[in-house]
Amino acid sequence: MSVYEKLKALNITLPEVTQPVAAFVPFVRSGKLLFVSGHIAKIDGKPWVGQLGRELSTEQGKDAARGVAIDLLGTLHGALGDLEKVRRILKLLVLVNSDPSFTEQHLVANGASELLVEVFGDEGKHARAAFGVAQIPFGSCVEIDLVAEYSVVSPLHSTSFPRATEDHE
Amino acid sequence: MSVYEKLKALNITLPEVTQPVAAFVPFVRSGKLLFVSGHIAKIDGKPWVGQLGRELSTEQGKDAARGVAIDLLGTLHGALGDLEKVRRILKLLVLVNSDPSFTEQHLVANGASELLVEVFGDEGKHARAAFGVAQIPFGSCVEIDLVAEYSVVSPLHSTSFPRATEDHE
Amino acid sequence: MSVYEKLKALNITLPEVTQPVAAFVPFVRSGKLLFVSGHIAKIDGKPWVGQLGRELSTEQGKDAARGVAIDLLGTLHGALGDLEKVRRILKLLVLVNSDPSFTEQHLVANGASELLVEVFGDEGKHARAAFGVAQIPFGSCVEIDLVAEYSVVSPLHSTSFPRATEDHE
Repeated sequence: MSVYEKLKALNITLPEVTQPVAAFVPFVRSGKLLFVSGHIAKIDGKPWVGQLGRELSTEQGKDAARGVAIDLLGTLHGALGDLEKVRRILKLLVLVNSDPSFTEQHLVANGASELLVEVFGDEGKHARAAFGVAQIPFGSCVEIDLVAEYSVVSPLHSTSFPRATEDHE
Repeated sequence: MSVYEKLKALNITLPEVTQPVAAFVPFVRSGKLLFVSGHIAKIDGKPWVGQLGRELSTEQGKDAARGVAIDLLGTLHGALGDLEKVRRILKLLVLVNSDPSFTEQHLVANGASELLVEVFGDEGKHARAAFGVAQIPFGSCVEIDLVAEYSVVSPLHSTSFPRATEDHE
Repeated sequence: MSVYEKLKALNITLPEVTQPVAAFVPFVRSGKLLFVSGHIAKIDGKPWVGQLGRELSTEQGKDAARGVAIDLLGTLHGALGDLEKVRRILKLLVLVNSDPSFTEQHLVANGASELLVEVFGDEGKHARAAFGVAQIPFGSCVEIDLVAEYSVVSPLHSTSFPRATEDHE
């Protein structure tokens, strides 16, 4: 199955790349590396507000992290024009908005990590650091940034997928 | 306008590279990548102490972040000998010393992001993650680390600028 | 002295690579870069629980950070098969589980930084960001992630050291 067939099987629709509300860009390329900006958790298009260990449960945090991973996939698709160009998810930084009593950041982060492995297989297996932060912009419960390695050419089996023709940066 | 002319127009004087007070170095190169250590906000040469959402306002935090960006420019200049060698600011990690009630880390971070775009133009547009942390060394209000891509040769229009002759690392 | 002779002189035994308890891997390679996942502080094989500025002193935090650096060395050894292949420690992200009143994250982080310089010499000098976080998975007091540059071939003076024959990823 191609990456897009897997997404379809998971009933996942990729969002458009969200333009940042501040003076930066959603992603930057350098050589084969793609640096993706921190994406915050959203629900119904708005920041998913709340702190783990207070307003939100670990299970909700995991759902939120999975949602962020879907948004990251949307940005990767916008950046590369074809998710099959992703050669490896290298690194996730998973920031969990945490009450000082909450110690399950790794379980929250799994919501994102597991989806990436489901979608990309071995290429989705990444290094990761997850930890609890005091706050996140807009009060969102989870923020994730990502570094990926990509290849310039698309593999053959994905050539039928429509390419983005503009650079979203 | 060259980068240095822009800095002059902004009335910005670059500081010397500050030697870390601990067992690390201000920057490290690998291939075309330059990894710059976290720089903390200072005022009058001392750590700018305070927490956003308590002692400091968003506007003060933004000023502090702008000041950190100036210090980062000083380090980039010291590292490369010529700021024109910066091909792209790739990534900022903006840590805002935050009371758990403060949710405007993105506005604070804009103080740094906007200056980098002012100085470098498109090459200054970067990926970014900004979030609230429980504390920062010395109680400083903002800390920023940076990854940049640089070119080994200087472009022609900056050859008149004096180069650093020693390696500051 | 080779890296392994230094470790022996320091009476340090490298641990096996710990397999993450979550959906990610301990390290990922891309080109000459090695991205190592966040490693948490342990004591007697279990998470070293506590917050700096509350249950733990700066000195204890520094010991914990040194212990994390030893675990990171174990992972580097597992990843590369030979620590002599490490060409440079590029970057540490040092997360210190901090009460909002604690401002000595840099002193805690020195426990890791100093060991890396002891073991690798100039190649161990790295860029670094250290800061206080609200919590860390399992309540551990310190978490560190690392980026290193490595060379594909081993230098001559380390050829007598046994190589790992399997890929731990």
